[in-house]
Amino acid sequence: MKTDHTESQFTHIAITDSFWMQYQKLITEVVIPYQWCALNDTIDDAEPSHAIDNFKIAAGQMQGEFYGMIFQDSDVAKWLEAVAYSLSNHPDPQLESIADDVIDLIGKAQQPNGYVNTYFTVKAPSEKWTNVCECHELYCAGHLIEAGVAYYCATEKTRLLDIVCKFADHINEVFGKKPGQLLGYPGHPEIEQALMRLYEVTQDTRYSQLSQFFIEQRGQQPHYYDIEYERRGQTSYWQTHGSAWMIKDKNYSQAHAPITKQSTATGHAVRFVYLMAGVAHLARINHSQEKLTACRTLWQNVTNKQMYITGSIGSQSQGEAFSCDYDLPNDTAYTETCASIGLIMFANQMLQLDPNSNYADVMERALYNTVLAGIALDGKHFFYVNPLEVYPKAIAYNHIYEHVKPIRQQWFGCACCPPNLARLIGSIGNYIYTVKDNTIYTNLYIASESTLYLSDGNMTLLQKGNYPWQDTITFTVKMAQPCQADIALRVPNWCQQPQLSINQTGFAAENIASDGYIHIKRQWQNDDEIILQLPMQPILVRPNPLLRHDMRKVAIQRGPLVYCIEQADNGEELHNLLLDSSSELKCIAGSGIFAGKTLIKATAYRIDSIHAHSQPLYSFNSEKPAMTKCELTLVPYFSWANRGEGEMRVWINEL
Amino acid sequence: MKTDHTESQFTHIAITDSFWMQYQKLITEVVIPYQWCALNDTIDDAEPSHAIDNFKIAAGQMQGEFYGMIFQDSDVAKWLEAVAYSLSNHPDPQLESIADDVIDLIGKAQQPNGYVNTYFTVKAPSEKWTNVCECHELYCAGHLIEAGVAYYCATEKTRLLDIVCKFADHINEVFGKKPGQLLGYPGHPEIEQALMRLYEVTQDTRYSQLSQFFIEQRGQQPHYYDIEYERRGQTSYWQTHGSAWMIKDKNYSQAHAPITKQSTATGHAVRFVYLMAGVAHLARINHSQEKLTACRTLWQNVTNKQMYITGSIGSQSQGEAFSCDYDLPNDTAYTETCASIGLIMFANQMLQLDPNSNYADVMERALYNTVLAGIALDGKHFFYVNPLEVYPKAIAYNHIYEHVKPIRQQWFGCACCPPNLARLIGSIGNYIYTVKDNTIYTNLYIASESTLYLSDGNMTLLQKGNYPWQDTITFTVKMAQPCQADIALRVPNWCQQPQLSINQTGFAAENIASDGYIHIKRQWQNDDEIILQLPMQPILVRPNPLLRHDMRKVAIQRGPLVYCIEQADNGEELHNLLLDSSSELKCIAGSGIFAGKTLIKATAYRIDSIHAHSQPLYSFNSEKPAMTKCELTLVPYFSWANRGEGEMRVWINEL
Repeated sequence: MKTDHTESQFTHIAITDSFWMQYQKLITEVVIPYQWCALNDTIDDAEPSHAIDNFKIAAGQMQGEFYGMIFQDSDVAKWLEAVAYSLSNHPDPQLESIADDVIDLIGKAQQPNGYVNTYFTVKAPSEKWTNVCECHELYCAGHLIEAGVAYYCATEKTRLLDIVCKFADHINEVFGKKPGQLLGYPGHPEIEQALMRLYEVTQDTRYSQLSQFFIEQRGQQPHYYDIEYERRGQTSYWQTHGSAWMIKDKNYSQAHAPITKQSTATGHAVRFVYLMAGVAHLARINHSQEKLTACRTLWQNVTNKQMYITGSIGSQSQGEAFSCDYDLPNDTAYTETCASIGLIMFANQMLQLDPNSNYADVMERALYNTVLAGIALDGKHFFYVNPLEVYPKAIAYNHIYEHVKPIRQQWFGCACCPPNLARLIGSIGNYIYTVKDNTIYTNLYIASESTLYLSDGNMTLLQKGNYPWQDTITFTVKMAQPCQADIALRVPNWCQQPQLSINQTGFAAENIASDGYIHIKRQWQNDDEIILQLPMQPILVRPNPLLRHDMRKVAIQRGPLVYCIEQADNGEELHNLLLDSSSELKCIAGSGIFAGKTLIKATAYRIDSIHAHSQPLYSFNSEKPAMTKCELTLVPYFSWANRGEGEMRVWINEL
Repeated sequence: MKTDHTESQFTHIAITDSFWMQYQKLITEVVIPYQWCALNDTIDDAEPSHAIDNFKIAAGQMQGEFYGMIFQDSDVAKWLEAVAYSLSNHPDPQLESIADDVIDLIGKAQQPNGYVNTYFTVKAPSEKWTNVCECHELYCAGHLIEAGVAYYCATEKTRLLDIVCKFADHINEVFGKKPGQLLGYPGHPEIEQALMRLYEVTQDTRYSQLSQFFIEQRGQQPHYYDIEYERRGQTSYWQTHGSAWMIKDKNYSQAHAPITKQSTATGHAVRFVYLMAGVAHLARINHSQEKLTACRTLWQNVTNKQMYITGSIGSQSQGEAFSCDYDLPNDTAYTETCASIGLIMFANQMLQLDPNSNYADVMERALYNTVLAGIALDGKHFFYVNPLEVYPKAIAYNHIYEHVKPIRQQWFGCACCPPNLARLIGSIGNYIYTVKDNTIYTNLYIASESTLYLSDGNMTLLQKGNYPWQDTITFTVKMAQPCQADIALRVPNWCQQPQLSINQTGFAAENIASDGYIHIKRQWQNDDEIILQLPMQPILVRPNPLLRHDMRKVAIQRGPLVYCIEQADNGEELHNLLLDSSSELKCIAGSGIFAGKTLIKATAYRIDSIHAHSQPLYSFNSEKPAMTKCELTLVPYFSWANRGEGEMRVWINEL
């Protein structure tokens, strides 16, 4: 992947990892073509998209009405961004030609002043910029800008970059503190991080300053959402939950207070992490201590009080939102795939701002568990919602589960998760390393060949291994001439006895710095070899005693992977299984759809329920129920629900 | 209370029980006057009712618009019914005069053809009987009929009875199978049982036949709800959850199939039990084996698969509805007070149809736990929703709890529960005995003086005791001359070793018949005395293994009372308390607001959480958390939340 170093710090990253190449192949060969069909409404039985047609209508190439969500344009932008990463990884002239045509179409739909948004162009031209709280106008702009940056980095073509620069210039005219400008900022953050990326490739400080404006205006009084609401005559776009709730519930958009005054993650989880990714990026460029502190505070709150063991966030369906500290129900969890994707983006920005393995630990947890659970092994079915416990029999009956699907779905009317998965997986190379102050931080253990930009020149790191299944990772250093640098190896928080050698000589792996990395500072020679071992025996995970939904339960993790039990292996009534935590957790090689994957066996006891259907609901002074010894089979959480509908649990009762 | 024997089988019942007299006093002295103020909008800070004004407007005594729920009239009817019972128990000329005035007002609001309903009279005269699915027109009629029957039985005054007979006659003209009549039936059942009661006092079979018509039309195809929906141009009254859901979701109203084809309780829980009370009553009068079978089947489903240990039903907020078998979450439960009241009415009808202690066991459980939990000790605060587990910190944040209140509320805009409590508690005497085939079934152990109608003449039973606190119940038989009869004493399902003596001679209490009663058949003499002992040691209750929310937990019951732990006694984090079920459960006398009540102490262990706030969410390969021995205090569930906001749990983790 070719990128400008100011955008991603790296000059070249090629993924060679079998685990991730398979996913990237799936994105390139299945998801991107499938999504292209979806955008063009050529998939039978899928909900209509109309996204390309909307652009054709806006471009004057077609007659018709806008159709779809108010943020339908963002599907096209996210597809283009995913295509950009795919072209970086796997050049494909035919795909590039299709993308170029889409970019041309966007150019034709762009208004003379730079404005791009098909909903407002086609359907409501007089309402532009009158409802930034509810109408995703700046959100769609953000995604288009991200696509423009990515497409330029991948292809060196400037057509889309020019379009988005012209659009950003227009936005910069509309919004600001000068007379006649609007003091607004988006209801759904996204443009903040997009503008920072645009700044990185263009080095035009107007873009970082505009991002700063949006971030710093957020939550100021008098509240802009109320101002524009009054100005347009108290109209509301979303009427689904009663009048104007999205405008009035400022917490929902993290707009209840300036971000530096917030200490608890609240509201819509995706909005929160998108916003924070932008804030962290800005804090790095601006050297803002105040914003760094805010980022750290909110990061701590999210990851130490409100995050599931699978790295998912946003524990309730209503508002796709955070609840409160330690309120993490497993069965009614919303835990949107996109929220974990955004958390990874936030983590990646924090790694560049404030290097610490904690950010990478969370990134890895979210990536290998929730994000990968979001996509089926066939690349055509997706989870929006990622519960940690599913009891399918009740889902159709109890409305507290109405957002929960026991199997992955084909596509969504609001299609945010699949293209977000495509762009994250396509750009996964960007998350492996952070280079800062002549230190190479290894954040993800993904086999790859990366050329990294150091003060003494470029270093190429060949990373090899079979992560997340095997515990040995090898790094080979390649360079034209020796150079002084610090290679910092992350010791994951789940790993208790890492081992390390350099050129076959042991290195004191216990010297983990306070930032969570083992720092190896030396004059690196060509062909130097580092071998890192992160022992992957299965680990018993216990919950904080404040997690009332998990008490007296354990989870099992191996390496970065959280495991779960499924009905397919363990029968019905998973609540009647008690894991014997004193027994050995055994690794076995999977077969069938689990070929190449490691499964875990554990000793357990099953509460006898053979006559339960004919027994009364409650028994008085009865004995403790009898139990029978049995063996549990655990599978990686990310691979659950690939065998039809059935019960699933991450947190297992402990004997 | 004076009633005609054909209505309630009894000629006179006087409550002498200290526990229940206190509640009846509360109803008479607090609830009825308070509710009268509510109906007249003279309570500050309460939601407006306008119910009396609606009748004044309909009667032409006042100018104005209808205001309130479409079923606002039923509040007045339920108040009148409660007043009737109160007047039976405690004559009060002033209250009777107010009630007579209200009845006069209703008479003036009655249309010449007999129709009574202020919403349709005032607001939508042309829409009468066009939307029986959604508009509660027959439901309000039902409550008015019940009030008419009760007021006649209490006062022997016929004014309201005449009004409701005229109204019922009108309904009988409008609905039926003759040409020009409507084939409809109510969306919200109520009139079915009301018409059966009207039949009992009038012996007019048109009323039982009309009830039969409504019951048998239910669920027939083509579906009447669809027919009237098309006929009126596809309009829907309730738009809150999207268009016409109440019409389309036939299960919600138990109208998806004829009642004799239903085997699972589904939909709105109150509707279900009101309907079934009517069906059971009709089955008894009609000697319908098919309806008896349906009643038994649905009773079994509700009470053996879908009922909480507190006797509450309807486990979800959405639709105030049943979920599916064994889906009984404790914290998100809806479990409306009215649903348990309706369950008691259903049980009471089943006892008369099909005597079996199982019905009375459920009746007692619902009454002493959920129903009494519905009203605060001050008589001015009420629970609509009765969860079995409350964690107040999360209620404000997680919308799965948005229906849950951690403390009782003053009044409700939709004021169904408080007047329902008033009429049930006021008429509790009707639930103590069933007389059938010269057998007196004792269903509730409530001290009382009851004159019962037997084939050989009247028998007066003096029941004494201090239930639910003390285990001895004494019955003294009073009669003019000896008579042959069977007195059947219920042995509650929680009681394992009942003891019994007659005239101080032991009686083999182990001879419990298959119907769950000890039958004493003899020639009864004046002053015969029965002493029944139902030992009340605290009982450990275990859940059926299919109740996944309760697994590895126990509940504690003593006599009919289910107990719970509250934060006020046991501190925060009730999920970290583990009850040692092998230790003794000790009864202690309560004090303060618990004076006169029995509390329970139990040995438990508390999981250490002192440093939890500063610990990570998840720990790897850590030891099992340390625990400290402690003592639990349990209070009766019905008296929870009388000490401000705090955590509460019925199901307690078992060590």
